[in-house]
Order: sequence, then C-alpha cells, then structure tokens
Amino acid sequence: MKVIKSLNGEPVPIPQVRKELDEAYEIDTKFENSRVLYSMCNSPPQIAREAHLKFIEANLGDSPLYPGTLILEKSVISMIGGLLHAPDTMAGSILNGGSEANILSLWIAREKRNTSKELEVVVPESAHYSIEVACKMLRLKMRPIPLDENYVMDFKAAKENIKENTCAVVGIAGTTELGVIDPIPQLSKLCEERGIHLHVDAAFGGFVFPFLELAGWEGKFPLFDFRLMGVRSITVDPHKMGRSTQPAGALLVREQSDLQYIKFNSYYLSSSVQHTMLGTRCSASVASAYAVMRSMGKNGYINMLQGCMKRTNYLCRLLKEEKFQPAIEEPIAPIVVIKFPQEYVEAIRKTLQESPYDWRVSVCRHPPGIRVVLMPHVRDDILPSFVNDLKLVCEKLKIR
Amino acid sequence: MKVIKSLNGEPVPIPQVRKELDEAYEIDTKFENSRVLYSMCNSPPQIAREAHLKFIEANLGDSPLYPGTLILEKSVISMIGGLLHAPDTMAGSILNGGSEANILSLWIAREKRNTSKELEVVVPESAHYSIEVACKMLRLKMRPIPLDENYVMDFKAAKENIKENTCAVVGIAGTTELGVIDPIPQLSKLCEERGIHLHVDAAFGGFVFPFLELAGWEGKFPLFDFRLMGVRSITVDPHKMGRSTQPAGALLVREQSDLQYIKFNSYYLSSSVQHTMLGTRCSASVASAYAVMRSMGKNGYINMLQGCMKRTNYLCRLLKEEKFQPAIEEPIAPIVVIKFPQEYVEAIRKTLQESPYDWRVSVCRHPPGIRVVLMPHVRDDILPSFVNDLKLVCEKLKIR
Repeated sequence: MKVIKSLNGEPVPIPQVRKELDEAYEIDTKFENSRVLYSMCNSPPQIAREAHLKFIEANLGDSPLYPGTLILEKSVISMIGGLLHAPDTMAGSILNGGSEANILSLWIAREKRNTSKELEVVVPESAHYSIEVACKMLRLKMRPIPLDENYVMDFKAAKENIKENTCAVVGIAGTTELGVIDPIPQLSKLCEERGIHLHVDAAFGGFVFPFLELAGWEGKFPLFDFRLMGVRSITVDPHKMGRSTQPAGALLVREQSDLQYIKFNSYYLSSSVQHTMLGTRCSASVASAYAVMRSMGKNGYINMLQGCMKRTNYLCRLLKEEKFQPAIEEPIAPIVVIKFPQEYVEAIRKTLQESPYDWRVSVCRHPPGIRVVLMPHVRDDILPSFVNDLKLVCEKLKIR
Repeated sequence: MKVIKSLNGEPVPIPQVRKELDEAYEIDTKFENSRVLYSMCNSPPQIAREAHLKFIEANLGDSPLYPGTLILEKSVISMIGGLLHAPDTMAGSILNGGSEANILSLWIAREKRNTSKELEVVVPESAHYSIEVACKMLRLKMRPIPLDENYVMDFKAAKENIKENTCAVVGIAGTTELGVIDPIPQLSKLCEERGIHLHVDAAFGGFVFPFLELAGWEGKFPLFDFRLMGVRSITVDPHKMGRSTQPAGALLVREQSDLQYIKFNSYYLSSSVQHTMLGTRCSASVASAYAVMRSMGKNGYINMLQGCMKRTNYLCRLLKEEKFQPAIEEPIAPIVVIKFPQEYVEAIRKTLQESPYDWRVSVCRHPPGIRVVLMPHVRDDILPSFVNDLKLVCEKLKIR
C-alpha cells in the first residue's frame, strides 16, 4: 500500500481499483473488533448506510431540488428539537458535524452584538477544541474557566469573568473528556438576566441525556436543554450517539430569527438564501439520521444507552476491584477516565497500544488519566481483558 | 410525505422506514432525467459510490486510526497536485467542499499578517458567496472588483485596490456563473512582488482546465495553477467535475509551512494536531475521490470534458440559430449563459421551470441571463427541445 503520486493516463480497471481500496481498508482500524476504546464515532446500523447511499446525490445547499430530503431534514430537526424541549420558534440545520455547529453558534452570538469592539466568550477549560477554532476564526477572545472538583465549569469563576463585552457563554452537556454536564441551569439564569447568548455544546450528550432521563435517571444530572430559558442554541451530533453516518451535526437555535445574522445570497442556485457556512451540504447523512432515528425510536435509544451505561458501570467495578481510580464515582455518560499521575499517562496510553495489548485509548487532561468511551460497538466481554492488560502495563512501567 | 414532528416511542419497522425514504426520494429531483441544467453537482459513477460506502466509518479527523484512508487522501492530494503542477513543498487536505477550502485559505492569509488591524481581501465581483462568508466570519473587509468586458476581474481596478492592508487576493479559475478565468498570471506577478497571498478558487475549474489543456486547448485560456509563482493556495472540488461523492473539496497550499497558521491541538484524539476547521472529517468521500480518479485516469477525464465541451458548443450553435445570444463567444468551460435584459431574466427562469417545460436553470448577474451548466449527466439529445422551449417561453412572455 503506497501513495499514488500522480494521476494515471489510462483508466485503471475497476477490479484493480477495488483491490487498492481493499488494501487501504485492510489496514484501517475497525470498530467491530472492540479494541478502539476512545472514539466517539460509531458503526452505523445497516439502515443508516442504506439511506446514506440512496441519497448520495442530494445537496441541501440547493434544497428546492430536493424537497424530499428537505422534509427528512425538517423531521430530524423536529425530532431532535422534541427531545430537547424546543419551543415552536426553534429552527435548525444539519451541518458537517459539531465543530461547524459550534462555530456557527458563536458567529451568531458575535453578530448579534453588532460591534467592532473585541468581544469575549466564556468557556469551560474542558471545551472541545472547535470552540478554540471558532474563537480564533471569529476573532473572539476566549476566557477559559477552570473546572471545579466535579470537573465542570466553576460557576463562581464563570460569573466573575462575564463582563460587558462577553457575547457568549458556552456550557457543555457531556464533555468530550469526561461526559459531565456544566452548571447550565445557573448559567442559563445568569445569561438570561444579562442578555448573553448561552450556547450548549451537546454534540455527544444530546443523544445521551434525553434518553437516560426517559429511562428514569431524572434528577441525576442537571438540565441543559431548551427548558432553560437562557439556552439560545444547542449543538447535537447525530453521527455520534445518534448512530447516523458522517457527517451529521445539528445546530438548533431557540428563535429562528437568530439565523438572520448569518444570511447569505447564493444567487446561482435555485434556493437563494443560505444560513450555513458551506455551499454544498451533504444530505446523504441527513437521510441516514432520519432512517436510524425512525428505526430506533425512543425505546431503541433507551435500550442502547442502558446497555452502554451497564458496560460503563461494569468497567468501573472491574477497575475498582483492581484498585484503579475512576475519576467519576457515578458516571452519567458512557465515559470512564482512570486517574493516573500526569507523568505516567502518555506512557500508559502508548504501551497499551503496543503489541501484545493492542488497545486504543486516549488521555484526559483534567484530571490526568486514561480515557475510555463505551460506545455501542464496545462489547462487555472485552472489558475484563482490558483491565487485566492495564494492570500488566502498569506493572511493566513500574507505576504501582 | 410529511414532516415527522417527534421521535416515535417504539421502533418503526425497517420496511416502513424504507417506504418513507422511498417517498422522499420520489419527489427529489434526479440528475439522470437531464432536466436539471444548472447544478455543478454530479451523479457519481458506481465505483465512487461503492468506495464511499466501504469507508463510511472512517474519520480522517482521527487519522492514526485510519492509515489506509490517509494513504488514499495523500494519493488524491498528490494526484490533484500533479494536475496543478504543485511543487514538492505542497500540502493539502480534503475538506467538506470548496466553501470550507476558501474559508481556510483566507484564514491562513489573515493569520500570516499577524495583526489586529483591519485587513482587506481583493476579490472579483463574480466570486462565489463562500468568499463573502469567509470575509464576514474572519472580519476581513471585502473589496469587490468590477468585471471587464470579458466578465473577468478588471486587472487595472484590482491593482488600484491592492493596498498596504490587503492580506489576500482571490482569483477564480472557472467562475460559478460563466466558467471564465480571472487574469491570474498578472495577479500572480503583482502578488509575488507585493508579498500578498493569492488564493485561486478553482472549485469548478480544477477538474476542467488541466484536462482541456492536455486535450490541446493550451493557450486558449490563461494559466491559473502553481506554475504561477504567486499562487499560494488553490481550492479544487472533487465532488464537482471530479465525479466523487459529496462532501469533497480540496485545499492545496504551495508551502506546507502555511498550515502552521491554523494548527490546533485535539488532545482527546490519537492524532493530536489538526489543520482543518472541523473535528470529524468525512473520509468516505476521500475514498470515493480516490476510486473515481484512478478509474477515470487522465484519459477518462479528457474524454468526459471533450464530451461536455462538444455539448456546450452544440448548445451555443442551436441558440445562435434561434438568434439567442450566448454571453461567451467561445466557451472554455461547459457553462452557457444566454443574455437577456435584466427585467426578463427571473420570469424566464420561473416559466421554464413550470409545466409543460419543466427545466431547472439558474440566472447570471453579470451579464444578466439564463445559465446552463453542461455537466456529464446532461445528454445532448435534450438540448434541441430545451432551446425550443426557451423560444416558446420567450414568445409566451412577449420578450422577442
């Protein structure tokens, strides 16, 4: 398998192209073998793939050509909006992922202020790097707020850092590293009083917490959705726990009128107004999200999440039996961080990846540790051997 | 076919989901019927779809998991780089389309200047709206330059508008509306002298002009690629004339070191450095671009383009026989704009779309007219009836 340096003159016969694709596919990591323990991407069900392929030509950037796909998008937005208790004024789009949704939300927040003065965004230190990307692109000053003892944004520090020129506050529902939820109810109240745009990044949590709540976990975690009047926009990724194909990230705004701040004319298309960043909007994954949501239903997601949480708790129990320390005593999302002194974390991660262990994990910064995400494709029967390998690696590295 | 308002409780059976997808698909417009005459999207060949589906789980945002897909991406970038005569220092990525590539290029140009002063971007009035999006997001002042009598950026006006605070000039190779090429050789010389980032938007033209040049059209249009030393970055869309699935837009930069300006750490992934805007990078379409490029080869694209240009010239001839006026005497890309007085353009477009005509065309601003793109899926046998319908519509509207 090598890089092809230049375009061939004559066509390469299809069987040869297939062989080359097979070679590339062969060395790619697969989720099905359950050894990738940190990815938030998923292995979409068959119906999601089937729908994707069927709508592969559709481009919602030119929606008048695709009234059918547009209905699918409206349905997906409406279904997600329902899960997040959105009011009737809500509007949304399916974009190329949570990053694009986060960038758009801060762009809206900046434009609302209609000033050339430097504006600031208050974000938890645990924010996804797309928030940093957004701030740099949009020339917004990012004010990172330290985490409290529960690894969520310290509300008091956040409050102190909100100033006259703060145009947005970002709260996270299901942090990338730990799966915890920022004090969004308090932030909502504060932002509502101060007239500041509160954006909630629920890229991961948007397809987790609504179903856990329905499954009886109510009260075990704070509210984060449109029931909180200060929440102006929410990012949710169907291509993570929603089980759709990539790329599919949703941005929902409380008031459709907020989209006016990012309106553009694309004269050359039949739809002449755009509210998104990119001209071509992959619509195959919109159909995929529709198909998988319909075919799962609330009960399908509830069952899936209960399975993930069962495996999460099982892993925590196995870890504690071996005297490892999970960062979160009672996880509210299928993410486990195993605490280690900072100086050992990278060595553990690397050694776990090597032969004979062959595990792919990632690291957590706050607290320092090894991070495992229990996506639906991670089977429970591999967890004892993972914990055992972690033990062996720690012994090998003389950590314990 | 109606919008689904909320997520069902019980799973909807797969056959019912399929039926709903069929209903949506039914009302979507299809390229295969050859009545969509303005889209720059394409109907990808079978091998492109097959490759897409095979790599549907891959996420190049986390490339260490996908060494195979990464080789496919490097191959695609290298093949495109070869077509554009890129030097060895070149680097690039496949992004979600030309819009994202254009935004990234101007972001790089802004960061290079490393100043908080307001910077400007000189662009032709014919620029794609993603350039306007980029300028608004990045807080760059856009200086639109009028077009000359050949509908390309007026070089003299461009030169006069380049100032101390100009951080980038955008030239277009294959304008969205007319398919013409800006005076990029002159712009290149000027930008090189002045140390200004020259970005070339060849989203459409990048898979057109290199093959027409190989087919003997050399000298019929100006150079626009890395052979011009002032060209710092180029946008090329495999998902347009490259025949890949969506979303696939390439950004190539002359010097890999330019990417340092947009470097981010994504600690939670195994690849800790990102040079793109979005965390999840759809990789299925990268595999698709690879497969279709290999299976077409230079000769496949040359044949395809020669076919498109033959149909373009055929349409021009039919139009002239009926005393319609194509804006460009000898088109260099498969786009035809039929000139009409501004006040009639929208009425003609709308009437053509209605029964019994049922044609989808779009409009051109400079000059005012009806725009037709002769993509590979537009068959030649429909062109006489299109011209005849245009005649009937003009008679009906009492335009001629």
